[in-house]
Amino acid sequence: MTTHRFYPTHYHITLGPHEPVLRIADGDTVITTTIDAGGTDAHGEQVAPEGNPQTGPFYVENAEPGDMLALRLDRLYPNRDTGYTSTAVAPNVVDPQYVRELPERTLAEWHIDRAAGMATLAKPVTRLGNLALPLAPMLGCFGVAPADRQAISTATSGPHGGNMDYRGFVAGVTVYFPVWAPGALIFMGDGHAVQGDGEIVGTGIETSFDVQFTVRVVKGKRIGWPRGDAERADYIFTVGNARPLDQAVQHATTEMLRWLQEDYGLDAVGANILLGQCVEYDLGNMFDPAYTMVCKVPKRWLKS
Amino acid sequence: MTTHRFYPTHYHITLGPHEPVLRIADGDTVITTTIDAGGTDAHGEQVAPEGNPQTGPFYVENAEPGDMLALRLDRLYPNRDTGYTSTAVAPNVVDPQYVRELPERTLAEWHIDRAAGMATLAKPVTRLGNLALPLAPMLGCFGVAPADRQAISTATSGPHGGNMDYRGFVAGVTVYFPVWAPGALIFMGDGHAVQGDGEIVGTGIETSFDVQFTVRVVKGKRIGWPRGDAERADYIFTVGNARPLDQAVQHATTEMLRWLQEDYGLDAVGANILLGQCVEYDLGNMFDPAYTMVCKVPKRWLKS
Amino acid sequence: MTTHRFYPTHYHITLGPHEPVLRIADGDTVITTTIDAGGTDAHGEQVAPEGNPQTGPFYVENAEPGDMLALRLDRLYPNRDTGYTSTAVAPNVVDPQYVRELPERTLAEWHIDRAAGMATLAKPVTRLGNLALPLAPMLGCFGVAPADRQAISTATSGPHGGNMDYRGFVAGVTVYFPVWAPGALIFMGDGHAVQGDGEIVGTGIETSFDVQFTVRVVKGKRIGWPRGDAERADYIFTVGNARPLDQAVQHATTEMLRWLQEDYGLDAVGANILLGQCVEYDLGNMFDPAYTMVCKVPKRWLKS
Amino acid sequence: MTTHRFYPTHYHITLGPHEPVLRIADGDTVITTTIDAGGTDAHGEQVAPEGNPQTGPFYVENAEPGDMLALRLDRLYPNRDTGYTSTAVAPNVVDPQYVRELPERTLAEWHIDRAAGMATLAKPVTRLGNLALPLAPMLGCFGVAPADRQAISTATSGPHGGNMDYRGFVAGVTVYFPVWAPGALIFMGDGHAVQGDGEIVGTGIETSFDVQFTVRVVKGKRIGWPRGDAERADYIFTVGNARPLDQAVQHATTEMLRWLQEDYGLDAVGANILLGQCVEYDLGNMFDPAYTMVCKVPKRWLKS
Repeated sequence: MTTHRFYPTHYHITLGPHEPVLRIADGDTVITTTIDAGGTDAHGEQVAPEGNPQTGPFYVENAEPGDMLALRLDRLYPNRDTGYTSTAVAPNVVDPQYVRELPERTLAEWHIDRAAGMATLAKPVTRLGNLALPLAPMLGCFGVAPADRQAISTATSGPHGGNMDYRGFVAGVTVYFPVWAPGALIFMGDGHAVQGDGEIVGTGIETSFDVQFTVRVVKGKRIGWPRGDAERADYIFTVGNARPLDQAVQHATTEMLRWLQEDYGLDAVGANILLGQCVEYDLGNMFDPAYTMVCKVPKRWLKS
Repeated sequence: MTTHRFYPTHYHITLGPHEPVLRIADGDTVITTTIDAGGTDAHGEQVAPEGNPQTGPFYVENAEPGDMLALRLDRLYPNRDTGYTSTAVAPNVVDPQYVRELPERTLAEWHIDRAAGMATLAKPVTRLGNLALPLAPMLGCFGVAPADRQAISTATSGPHGGNMDYRGFVAGVTVYFPVWAPGALIFMGDGHAVQGDGEIVGTGIETSFDVQFTVRVVKGKRIGWPRGDAERADYIFTVGNARPLDQAVQHATTEMLRWLQEDYGLDAVGANILLGQCVEYDLGNMFDPAYTMVCKVPKRWLKS
Repeated sequence: MTTHRFYPTHYHITLGPHEPVLRIADGDTVITTTIDAGGTDAHGEQVAPEGNPQTGPFYVENAEPGDMLALRLDRLYPNRDTGYTSTAVAPNVVDPQYVRELPERTLAEWHIDRAAGMATLAKPVTRLGNLALPLAPMLGCFGVAPADRQAISTATSGPHGGNMDYRGFVAGVTVYFPVWAPGALIFMGDGHAVQGDGEIVGTGIETSFDVQFTVRVVKGKRIGWPRGDAERADYIFTVGNARPLDQAVQHATTEMLRWLQEDYGLDAVGANILLGQCVEYDLGNMFDPAYTMVCKVPKRWLKS
Repeated sequence: MTTHRFYPTHYHITLGPHEPVLRIADGDTVITTTIDAGGTDAHGEQVAPEGNPQTGPFYVENAEPGDMLALRLDRLYPNRDTGYTSTAVAPNVVDPQYVRELPERTLAEWHIDRAAGMATLAKPVTRLGNLALPLAPMLGCFGVAPADRQAISTATSGPHGGNMDYRGFVAGVTVYFPVWAPGALIFMGDGHAVQGDGEIVGTGIETSFDVQFTVRVVKGKRIGWPRGDAERADYIFTVGNARPLDQAVQHATTEMLRWLQEDYGLDAVGANILLGQCVEYDLGNMFDPAYTMVCKVPKRWLKS
């Protein structure tokens, strides 16, 4: 169980079978950094082109196609004092007739007070004044190399993860991914100090992050979509990435029905009845080509 | 401010310009009952055909087309000891390839302990055993007469409300509807003792309810979609009913952007920035021809 | 077999259980007129409010719930020399980012030369000049009273027909509708002298029509969605009305699979193989709350 | 203007920045072959794994990012006597409630008579008997390397083309693609002897092809989605690939509005009016993660 410190020097805008930057063992921990969605680092320097540039990939020894990778987000926190958001809801999130009434899409600037745990709107001047929001740091875009040696843009998402922008991807959460490439190949970036559901303006409060994560390989465990365990919020979840949202719900619900029967000792009827009365859904990204819906079950209804 | 007690003798399976069962004044309160989605009342007698039969319509004096009706749900509670759910997630909520793996759709029975505030699964026998869930009573289907003298089935929903199955429609919530028909014409039914997001098995725990509500007319206030104020949970919300979910989100988000600018003193840029980082979405019905998405803003971010 | 001449004096903007204007027998023919979508008649007088006002309803003796109504469109032709269209593609038919680039939605005027069979663009002045298009008269909105005594706006469509805007609804076509109301209750209006697929500007060349149709009742024949027989174009078709288009395709395809097995002597595997290699789809309305897709099979592949 | 003969020895199941198999000049012609979707060649030997394996990529000298590639399909024809289809409509193309009624998905075998130009159903035995269909050879999956050095599976489609399964991709058609990678990098495969709209059983009549194509580079011409010119059928078209179909229509319609204004001398109002009354849509693939819709304008309404 080694803890690695990794200082990235280059970044990727696709998740794919790229040359690993570090090889780690099953059970190891990595402490590293991510740059913001626009390519700017902790020092305010643009070190990569925009587009959710990713740190990695990290190669996990012993992770092979057909396995499942458990990626625990141990710590996520902004590592600088500034962030930015967009000023306009995306045209695809409002009625088509309303698009012309949306304000121009420019950048709003936020001051991040890491000690106080608050982000404060610095500009533009609006009736919001200096709106101050509690930090809720989350990773917008991360995942593993996709199936079939595909390389898929960080502008979208799929069974491999990617740009899911789910505000539930916070410290303390373990995310499970299917492994398709030898070493799984972990990528991460696009940290948000704060974000509303859906990332409907196309950004959270975009900033650079310090990140710590720990990996574990589950041999021979095949899954279809990302799964997760939110320790602190006490629920398990599955993630569907697709358009329209209806299909994202279908992916996530199907994956949850499978999980409940595989690992939580439920028969089909029991899993169906339970979901019917206890399921919750969260909206992840609704800005990208693929949208994200999350299917949750509170752990108190489960016997593991 | 009169309090009326109304005992229904017949029910409707469309929301439309039907003969009022009671005329009430602006500010009045009504205490009445609803029967379950299958037409069964507090005594276990089937008194109407199935299909979310509605109590009402109640005619509100002074409510005219172009006004807004505020409908406060004062009290909602089961009035009998039994409820039922379906045993299978609806085919439209899972991957098409998975439909064949769903269990047969039959009825599960629940015992409702009103004193203890719990619903307990009575049958079928599954690995869930006698799963016990805390009651969270909500109205599945309610609303007003639609535009253009339409009469629309309680199997679906629209700008007039209808079968929205949102678990946030609980006691203490005020719902605002557009008024299209003289008197607004309020309908309600389809009480659920408990329900998961999406009503994905096509039912909550279906049962009959005692209901108390209070009305208020806001003259000359035009709105496009149902709006709401969740006093106890401390958020405001808007409701979009459409398919796919993407369009329901568009309706609800557009209505919220309008509301924030009309009544909460925000400029367009401020409303857009606020939603971007603070909005939350809930999934209502995902079973009917029209699906439901709810757009929420916590009140702590608003100055009224 | 009587031929009735009916001169409408009032119109409906919902399809519902309205008072019949004429009672006709199984096998009868009706010669009547429709006014344009804006409510203007053959003389250029606005005789009804806008919104696809409908002639009818016509009550067909012997048509009862559970039957099928065959409605043959014998003749459809403009009965005046003018028509109008919109000048802008609807915002829901282009990329959300492109909405701001659409031109303003105003009215274009067309001259209809009924003798020559041509419609010519009269204004505005554009680089199209006086574009001349051959007349292809079709009914935009027609159908029967919906299930459950609903009254549904002519702005949308459903299993009962309504505003389907399919350019295949031309003279010589027989359309089959489910019967839910006693007498079926036939409505029709919204004639288009010409129309592109999808009615993507929200109008065809809107004008008033002379219409002749003939009815036939098929007792005890239950269908789920409109079906049709295009004599002159030599195909049969089914119609799905829903959103998104994906669901409209699902409705139409399912109805066709059923039809092929019920009435064309095919087993399930045969029907599936045939559709796979021979099916064609047309796009009807893509402007309304419900969109329309048509599933076609050329008759040459069928043995009746 | 050289004509190359190329004999493929390996195949790709992603379109991406792979090593070119041949370098050709602007204006050159290539005569080559494709194997069927399952990886089987003209001799009935499986030479690659299934999944629409692609011949190529062909590197076009002088094609650079920001250019447009014109790919003319000169000749497409089966090069063996057998083909296969699936026997069941895909679950996503029928109503979710109908999925259980679909037949099992197995393979049907077809005899291809290249001299007679007919494909005949050989098995299974169904009420179709030996259904014989005229050959209408088309390419199911082809395109160029995507943006951002992505490598995208042949199971789906995008702005770069891919698995579009449009029955209009026949000999005589020129398809225009955006160029993102140096040399454009042309891929092709998945020939269908016959196919219904939508490829709704997930296959056309899958077989191996002889193919001849000719390339031309248009420098500095930026387009957003594939465009095409159907010489023989006398229309131009644009292609949108996305889900739901609604979004595919949006992409294709937007691209057509741009094209009409860029290259056909129309102002915005003219282009909008023309599409409104003259546009036609075809359904391409409705089986893959991304669906395909084609927007067509008959050339007789255009002055080039």
